[in-house]
Amino acid sequence: MFSFDILATENNARVGKLVTPHGTIQTPSFVPVGTLATVKALSAEDLCKLGSQVIITNAYHLHLRPGEDLIEEMGGLHRFMSWEGPLMTDSGGFQIFSLGSGKEHGVGKIAPIFPQEKDRSIGPCSSKKEKPLVRVDEEGVEFISYLIGSRHRATPEQVIEIERKLGADIILVLDECTSPLHDYSYTKEAMERTHRWGIRAFAEFKRMSETRQALFGIIQGGAYRDLREKSAKFIAEQDFDGYAIGGSLGRSKEEMNQVLEWTMPFLPQDRPRHLLGIGEVDDIFEIVGRGIDLFDCVLPTRMARTGTVLTKETDRFRIHIRNARFKDDPLPIEEECTCYSCCNYSRAYLRHLFMTRDLLGVRLATIHNVHFLESLMHQIRLAIKEGRLCALRREWLSTI
Amino acid sequence: MFSFDILATENNARVGKLVTPHGTIQTPSFVPVGTLATVKALSAEDLCKLGSQVIITNAYHLHLRPGEDLIEEMGGLHRFMSWEGPLMTDSGGFQIFSLGSGKEHGVGKIAPIFPQEKDRSIGPCSSKKEKPLVRVDEEGVEFISYLIGSRHRATPEQVIEIERKLGADIILVLDECTSPLHDYSYTKEAMERTHRWGIRAFAEFKRMSETRQALFGIIQGGAYRDLREKSAKFIAEQDFDGYAIGGSLGRSKEEMNQVLEWTMPFLPQDRPRHLLGIGEVDDIFEIVGRGIDLFDCVLPTRMARTGTVLTKETDRFRIHIRNARFKDDPLPIEEECTCYSCCNYSRAYLRHLFMTRDLLGVRLATIHNVHFLESLMHQIRLAIKEGRLCALRREWLSTI
Repeated sequence: MFSFDILATENNARVGKLVTPHGTIQTPSFVPVGTLATVKALSAEDLCKLGSQVIITNAYHLHLRPGEDLIEEMGGLHRFMSWEGPLMTDSGGFQIFSLGSGKEHGVGKIAPIFPQEKDRSIGPCSSKKEKPLVRVDEEGVEFISYLIGSRHRATPEQVIEIERKLGADIILVLDECTSPLHDYSYTKEAMERTHRWGIRAFAEFKRMSETRQALFGIIQGGAYRDLREKSAKFIAEQDFDGYAIGGSLGRSKEEMNQVLEWTMPFLPQDRPRHLLGIGEVDDIFEIVGRGIDLFDCVLPTRMARTGTVLTKETDRFRIHIRNARFKDDPLPIEEECTCYSCCNYSRAYLRHLFMTRDLLGVRLATIHNVHFLESLMHQIRLAIKEGRLCALRREWLSTI
Repeated sequence: MFSFDILATENNARVGKLVTPHGTIQTPSFVPVGTLATVKALSAEDLCKLGSQVIITNAYHLHLRPGEDLIEEMGGLHRFMSWEGPLMTDSGGFQIFSLGSGKEHGVGKIAPIFPQEKDRSIGPCSSKKEKPLVRVDEEGVEFISYLIGSRHRATPEQVIEIERKLGADIILVLDECTSPLHDYSYTKEAMERTHRWGIRAFAEFKRMSETRQALFGIIQGGAYRDLREKSAKFIAEQDFDGYAIGGSLGRSKEEMNQVLEWTMPFLPQDRPRHLLGIGEVDDIFEIVGRGIDLFDCVLPTRMARTGTVLTKETDRFRIHIRNARFKDDPLPIEEECTCYSCCNYSRAYLRHLFMTRDLLGVRLATIHNVHFLESLMHQIRLAIKEGRLCALRREWLSTI
């Protein structure tokens, strides 16, 4: 029910065809994030029209609400959210980080370097420092619901069980995503635990002999070369259907690229590779160029909710539509864009919607942002087929 | 550019064809409210698919933001909001009430009867009593922006000028909508002022010799028979293109029906009649049965935003989707409904969207509610043509 074929390559970049029980994904592909079984503000029809091929939801969040049992009872995730195409479920490993050490350290997946703490590999670096809601041990993870304060435990086996009930096509093993501020010793310890969890998850997956789902292993190891190499080798040796590369990805885009540089050579060519949680325009060219096939990112949808829309016309590929200069701008977000929002509405109208807090504004901005990325990915796939990815990259990134 | 033809009648109910420069409205028709140049959460495409024929926006609100000059500069309201069909603009008369005496009296257009104040025609009746933001005199209205506290004045002539710039097909004169708690004397005074304003507005409209817009006069007179009759006669004598019946509409649905009973006989058969701000299911049968051709109501869209959806299956034609009993309900809102929401999503999913505050929930609920009313109006028009409106009414209202 699953297959992955490489159709074309250009250096390390590749165009592939990933077949799943719910349809085929042309890779490399952007994977919109639908954490709670919805890509915020978009209907299944919207996503279909936008050319989105696959959505990633989150097992941890769906476990808390509405619960995997309810979704199974409703016919599974596809039917529940009325999405007939391929689906993925992330495991909750990122939440172990974001609600655990990320919360404690006050940082994201890529931690900015603060001059005063360059030599500290762990420690306070932000006023956002908060009490973690997650504790990790060998058995699995214990967490407190951020919604109602209840205590939960989840083992790698239980996460597979949750993901089986949800029924996504591609499911991810439970991992421990470490913080960019964790030191070598802790990052190594967590990585080794993630490996042991991966083996347990794989065994549980096989025990269920589930054929309508594919299981991806996750590579960890922080921004340490030997750990990333070790993790890549170890995970590649298991018979996972594909591989995901998890955070932390260091303290800069350069470090993220290094992580890929160290990791990719060890991954078998014939299986799909997913980079978790990355997706700015310059990142996309970088990771696709290094052989990434799938990546998910909340950025385009999250930015849209505050009126930040993607455009090729500025150096950071974005404008803030609420800016006063768009007050009487009769042009669409992008003149050449063929999305529904740009075909029908001006920047002035979009700004008016955001200034009056109308929900339509969020939807129109989300439609544009997702279309922007889907269109970019379409161009990238075409460029790889025609051996001109480097040229396309220059064309796009010449402004920055 | 405008015409109105009656195609069929059943007692006082009628099916008509109202031609405007932006298309034809089959009457009787529900008019969705798009106060700020958007029917909240819906795109123009959504409304088109829902079969909505005409939208009413609000000159007062659009004057405050983004301003009629900006909209004119952007090519007018149709182009600004990307709606190619017929448009109406309400004048702001209702805001004179809601931000003025309505605010002061703490009541809506239909005031409930409180036992302790049955004999009082004016006075405090709610803890919501607040300082009014509007003052009326012979010249026009002075109001304080509820957004930034700035002072504004508007005369009947200026409102015509604002509406001309906005460019809706059907525009309404400035009126003074009184409170159900105003006494006879004040209601009479306000009605007579509304008449004088109507004449001034009409003169200004003619002076502009605008042929792509139609002007509707507004009938006032509260819940007093002689005032309503006098107002209907007076407005009917002017050469307005159509007539709107404004609030207050008394203290109960019975009083609202009486207002129509008194008013309708004086209105010429050959011009369209609009009832402002009414639209519950039982009201619709009542007002259509009395010869109303158009009515606008925020109810279906406003209710949708809190998860209240319309259904034929309960006595008050609504269910609250956030109710726990829908948690695991695999059925759509209505099994027979053909709207996008019902064709694709379960009550359980819709509830999940509202519980997780996803914007898609509001859109799906709004789509359903607008579809519900548009579908009802389609059935009503068909029933009148076939002389079975009474039967349809019995079928729908037998449950209440």
